Amino acid sequence: MAPKTINVALIGSKFMGRAHSNAYLKAGKFFQLPVELVMHTLLARHPQETEAFARRWGWRNWSTDWQKTLSDPQIDLVDITTPNNAHRELAVAALEAGKHVACEKPLAASLDDARLMLKAAQKAKKSQTFVWYNYRRCPAVAFAHQLARQGKLGKIYHVRAAYLQDWAGPDTPLIWRFQGDVAGSGALGDLCAHSIDMARFITGQEITQVVGAMTETFIKERNVISSGGGEISGKGGAIKRKKGKSTVDDATLFLARFSGGAVASFEATRLSTGDKNRNRMEIHGDKGAIRFNFERMNELEWYDATLPGNVQGWSTINVTNGSEGHPYAGAWWPVAHVLGYEHGFINMAADIMFALAGRKPVVPLPDFADAYQTQRVLAAVVASAKNGCPVPLAQIK
Amino acid sequence: MAPKTINVALIGSKFMGRAHSNAYLKAGKFFQLPVELVMHTLLARHPQETEAFARRWGWRNWSTDWQKTLSDPQIDLVDITTPNNAHRELAVAALEAGKHVACEKPLAASLDDARLMLKAAQKAKKSQTFVWYNYRRCPAVAFAHQLARQGKLGKIYHVRAAYLQDWAGPDTPLIWRFQGDVAGSGALGDLCAHSIDMARFITGQEITQVVGAMTETFIKERNVISSGGGEISGKGGAIKRKKGKSTVDDATLFLARFSGGAVASFEATRLSTGDKNRNRMEIHGDKGAIRFNFERMNELEWYDATLPGNVQGWSTINVTNGSEGHPYAGAWWPVAHVLGYEHGFINMAADIMFALAGRKPVVPLPDFADAYQTQRVLAAVVASAKNGCPVPLAQIK
Amino acid sequence: MAPKTINVALIGSKFMGRAHSNAYLKAGKFFQLPVELVMHTLLARHPQETEAFARRWGWRNWSTDWQKTLSDPQIDLVDITTPNNAHRELAVAALEAGKHVACEKPLAASLDDARLMLKAAQKAKKSQTFVWYNYRRCPAVAFAHQLARQGKLGKIYHVRAAYLQDWAGPDTPLIWRFQGDVAGSGALGDLCAHSIDMARFITGQEITQVVGAMTETFIKERNVISSGGGEISGKGGAIKRKKGKSTVDDATLFLARFSGGAVASFEATRLSTGDKNRNRMEIHGDKGAIRFNFERMNELEWYDATLPGNVQGWSTINVTNGSEGHPYAGAWWPVAHVLGYEHGFINMAADIMFALAGRKPVVPLPDFADAYQTQRVLAAVVASAKNGCPVPLAQIK
Amino acid sequence: MAPKTINVALIGSKFMGRAHSNAYLKAGKFFQLPVELVMHTLLARHPQETEAFARRWGWRNWSTDWQKTLSDPQIDLVDITTPNNAHRELAVAALEAGKHVACEKPLAASLDDARLMLKAAQKAKKSQTFVWYNYRRCPAVAFAHQLARQGKLGKIYHVRAAYLQDWAGPDTPLIWRFQGDVAGSGALGDLCAHSIDMARFITGQEITQVVGAMTETFIKERNVISSGGGEISGKGGAIKRKKGKSTVDDATLFLARFSGGAVASFEATRLSTGDKNRNRMEIHGDKGAIRFNFERMNELEWYDATLPGNVQGWSTINVTNGSEGHPYAGAWWPVAHVLGYEHGFINMAADIMFALAGRKPVVPLPDFADAYQTQRVLAAVVASAKNGCPVPLAQIK
Repeated sequence: MAPKTINVALIGSKFMGRAHSNAYLKAGKFFQLPVELVMHTLLARHPQETEAFARRWGWRNWSTDWQKTLSDPQIDLVDITTPNNAHRELAVAALEAGKHVACEKPLAASLDDARLMLKAAQKAKKSQTFVWYNYRRCPAVAFAHQLARQGKLGKIYHVRAAYLQDWAGPDTPLIWRFQGDVAGSGALGDLCAHSIDMARFITGQEITQVVGAMTETFIKERNVISSGGGEISGKGGAIKRKKGKSTVDDATLFLARFSGGAVASFEATRLSTGDKNRNRMEIHGDKGAIRFNFERMNELEWYDATLPGNVQGWSTINVTNGSEGHPYAGAWWPVAHVLGYEHGFINMAADIMFALAGRKPVVPLPDFADAYQTQRVLAAVVASAKNGCPVPLAQIK
Repeated sequence: MAPKTINVALIGSKFMGRAHSNAYLKAGKFFQLPVELVMHTLLARHPQETEAFARRWGWRNWSTDWQKTLSDPQIDLVDITTPNNAHRELAVAALEAGKHVACEKPLAASLDDARLMLKAAQKAKKSQTFVWYNYRRCPAVAFAHQLARQGKLGKIYHVRAAYLQDWAGPDTPLIWRFQGDVAGSGALGDLCAHSIDMARFITGQEITQVVGAMTETFIKERNVISSGGGEISGKGGAIKRKKGKSTVDDATLFLARFSGGAVASFEATRLSTGDKNRNRMEIHGDKGAIRFNFERMNELEWYDATLPGNVQGWSTINVTNGSEGHPYAGAWWPVAHVLGYEHGFINMAADIMFALAGRKPVVPLPDFADAYQTQRVLAAVVASAKNGCPVPLAQIK
Repeated sequence: MAPKTINVALIGSKFMGRAHSNAYLKAGKFFQLPVELVMHTLLARHPQETEAFARRWGWRNWSTDWQKTLSDPQIDLVDITTPNNAHRELAVAALEAGKHVACEKPLAASLDDARLMLKAAQKAKKSQTFVWYNYRRCPAVAFAHQLARQGKLGKIYHVRAAYLQDWAGPDTPLIWRFQGDVAGSGALGDLCAHSIDMARFITGQEITQVVGAMTETFIKERNVISSGGGEISGKGGAIKRKKGKSTVDDATLFLARFSGGAVASFEATRLSTGDKNRNRMEIHGDKGAIRFNFERMNELEWYDATLPGNVQGWSTINVTNGSEGHPYAGAWWPVAHVLGYEHGFINMAADIMFALAGRKPVVPLPDFADAYQTQRVLAAVVASAKNGCPVPLAQIK
Repeated sequence: MAPKTINVALIGSKFMGRAHSNAYLKAGKFFQLPVELVMHTLLARHPQETEAFARRWGWRNWSTDWQKTLSDPQIDLVDITTPNNAHRELAVAALEAGKHVACEKPLAASLDDARLMLKAAQKAKKSQTFVWYNYRRCPAVAFAHQLARQGKLGKIYHVRAAYLQDWAGPDTPLIWRFQGDVAGSGALGDLCAHSIDMARFITGQEITQVVGAMTETFIKERNVISSGGGEISGKGGAIKRKKGKSTVDDATLFLARFSGGAVASFEATRLSTGDKNRNRMEIHGDKGAIRFNFERMNELEWYDATLPGNVQGWSTINVTNGSEGHPYAGAWWPVAHVLGYEHGFINMAADIMFALAGRKPVVPLPDFADAYQTQRVLAAVVASAKNGCPVPLAQIK
């Protein structure tokens, strides 16, 4: 029987804590949820900040004691938005406590951690798991997935993914995202993980081999900030005069093969001058092709190679037409009254509620098993970059 | 002394009622408001729908008796989102009751109504008034305004505005937006009013003459629906077999002169096949030029004619960079984590709160006096279209 | 019986003299012409320049005596590229001498001149006439015409034309294009005439009324140059310190109605900062719509409103696919090995040869009767701008 | 002393024979060449076709005996446009005969051939050599090179090149471009060679390592055509029912490092559905970035990271402004009267004449030594794809 209420405990109050809080706040306003979504408890580190954040966003309770919260029988869903190296401990504990778990991506800071999380998920038969690969629920990406499922792309020849940002110049300080022990990796886990998930999601295929890979740390040292954390803007703490070593990749590139025969290239970087959040994906099949660029997230470019040749062209579809069935569009505004970044999260919060009520989400939600496949690719990329050889995915367990 | 709390009463629960509710819900989450914004009372017509809507959005009270609500001393701000022909009665009553008033655009269904509203506003010395020309608070438009204020456009030669939609084909039923007695006008008041406000806002100039104008009703008769209302999607009521006469313009075009010497063209239409919500503005001065298209609302195109000639070009600025000072961007997400349609409303709700606290909004808010200038242009357009002659604005009192 | 050879006499050696020479040089290289095209005689004003130009381009003969050349029985086709005020005398003389005549656009500097030219053409039963509205033979425009002829646009609601340039700032000297007695008009005849022809050509409809119009001379005085002529770049002569009055429009805008019911706006300007040669056309019917921008001349944007709603979008067709039947493309390079400005002229030179051989051009060629319709619109625009009233085309004889 | 005349002998009359003939025909019309360029002799295989082609294009002589032509003392420049496997024999013979040599790209079908050509060039002290990497003389690419030389890109982080076509579907027959013994390679030498040359040309850096590479032949068998040749369109001969094996790559991808520290990805394919001739290049430095897409060849996208942050954006420069100094633009038409594919060849023919007259070309011309560097990269890519390991360029002699 479907639950009537889902009490959510959110862990984290930074960038993602805010994105998720907003998602929980709004999901029930725009979607006809099958359950009552309750913003039950906020968990974070600093008591005062935690209270202020909880009050602002309407969390009913707040706490800095995660073990207590996880053992609270009222909590149904634990949502983890901490830095990557904390995912494993929290997720495993929540699963062992019988909770459903939603975890930010990538699944973990290491493949070993990810495997432990997967095992915990497999054991927890009554728990559902979710990983916040939020771009799946960007309507254009969801629509691309649907077109591919309907066979509109045909046999896929090419996948070309590039996730390009430019915020990590030499003046950006040594926030946690540059610390390998906290983040696990740099552009690879932060950005490329999204691209890998999106490519798997749209094509419906798995990567079978990483053919070649390279990582680069252009800026080897960065200014240390006083507190360990810090947001992307570096406002998390005063900048000290001390320099510290960046231990993650500023950029990662790799070539790959997909199970259906496609060849692929992936690139993720934080130093692509001029590109602010260009999460770009191009997929070409023998019947059609799609292009996506998150900076124009309301648009999907679509090439229909089955139309008469003289009117074939790249068509820019404004994927906001609810009455024409564009995914998620019906919940929102009239056509071309466009959506933004945060809507992917809101759409996902709604879909999680549908899933917890035993209903089908609009497009498939990634669970721990699904996200583990992406994590294996991350590991294969690291291995290939290190040993200079192709790495078949079969070697990554 | 600034108030501590602003209790809002919202009138209307359709498309705009939803957009405003969302704005009030979120303004305090993303902005550091100088007052506590309270969603106090929702007013609408049908008791059951009103209660359901109020519960969903978190309005503390609801009512179908507007006179009672307007006389409630707890209410500080009355926000009107009804069809245009009801603006005057409600706004005047609210002002007479000493309330601040925010009113959807256009100010009124007729110039006579608008004038009465303006007079009431002038009398109500303690009340502030606001008109929801929301595109001013679309960050790209606000930024264009700032660039123009800094003299970056120089002397303006050309204004070219087109607000293009295509939802009003022959199958769209006779909703209130096609009924002249309710809406006042069609594309003119619905869409072109936005363009006129935006052009006035960015240039800082007034239209001095409507040189020529034309209106057209392409679809003369439409299917009647059972209830009088109905959203754009026509879902407001069952469609009857009866045909009724459309008494508004499907399209309006006019030419104009601005006080600073610019020549201008305006077009608004609901039958521009392929254009879903293309609110487009192009302004060319002797030092620079801007282009805006709402369907890509996070981008402002900017041409700097003072750069070296060989690197001059149309530059696409992603106007979401808080740390670089793009208006409103600092309240939201990292750069290029893009915004959507609803954010203009949220930005405006926040700015209204700043204004009510005696603080300056990010960019100027249109009050009744300001919106009355736009209403005069609407009247001049109608006059020019009717008599076939140029109409100096000085003739429209 | 079709002629074997066409001997061409070209009048003029400036911008257009060069564009036409290039067209005659190349037409036979890329097209299988049904006649031998001979570059027979170049006519221009200054003996030395004329000889140098003729030698460079391969004209077999040159002359500065137009009367002698026009009476030369060897000449089959006289091509006129002089300033507009010389069109009438030369064209009438050539027609009376039994020549075919090709004339640069607009047909004449005045409607009276144009009418005399039309009458001369009607009398000269054996002569064919052509007017160089070259954009018709820009492949994207020709393809738009073909789509419209096939009914793909359906009933046309909107025509939106803007021809935008920005070269005429205050530093540009008083070349002939700013002299009303030579040019007839400014942006109107130079640019807007193209838009009017293109709109008539694509829609297959005539303008029935100019509803309102305005012209503006932003820069009232300009530097005089030593010689009367001068190219756009102002290199035709040394600039004097003297100022002279510009007697043409820098910008012209008008609204119009088409015979099929469409409403239309036209704008032409030489002061649209940032727009170098933006000859833009948008046409929306109930079945489809097209957009064109000459700065991306190899692309036609096409919206097919008969496709399933969820895949409708603006499609960018690279109109260079000879094997798919794009007009003119088969004569040139492989698909997307793109064409340039000059190819419209070459395509037209080829089509003129086809016409002179009694064959059908790829798309219709404008003759004097056709161009006279455009000239009537120019006159109606001037009349409407002057008297401030709508001008039915029926009033312009 | 500079020669007065350059007598050209062209070998080949197919796609490139036509492009080069057009270039020689027009160079002297638009540029003030320092020598008289004479279209002296056309060499091709089939007597009748050769004569017809020579007559059409104005070659003074024609021949099918290349040895005789190469020994003709009148010939100054031998231009080779044959399939790649014939480059070596012809170029070496021409150099030994004391001729200047221009050769289509890639330099040769194999690195061994290329080395022999390089040696012959080094021996022929009086001969100049040229390789038709024509995109260098596409104005946008030349301008990107100039910007980089002026330090406007700063330190380069990223190079991202993709040359995407889609003409090689399963219905395209087995023309010479799919025959490894004739073409040397498929997309690699045909397309990727251009990208490698462009990247080296713009950055001014060399590739030091191929980090990983993959090639793919999606369509393993194709229809045999009756004659050995055949143009891209497959019109070179009747298609037989027999199938033959394609022995080249349909797609090649590789990752690389540049001498200045940049990381790079390259992709070339003939099966990127929807992309007709998308020769795309993106280069990001710490001061600026450029983007180029040949399908919009008149535009260079430029991001200036030294501008004030709030007006930074990708700027679309229409690189056709002669009076502002855009390379080659002054020879052609007014600004934004755009150029096409063929103009790169004409610009190169002109630059070759300048070089032969001892003058400097607008931007550097690739000679055999320069093109040999690109050929080494091609060899490294093949080696890396084969052995699955990184290949330092130092290993490729």
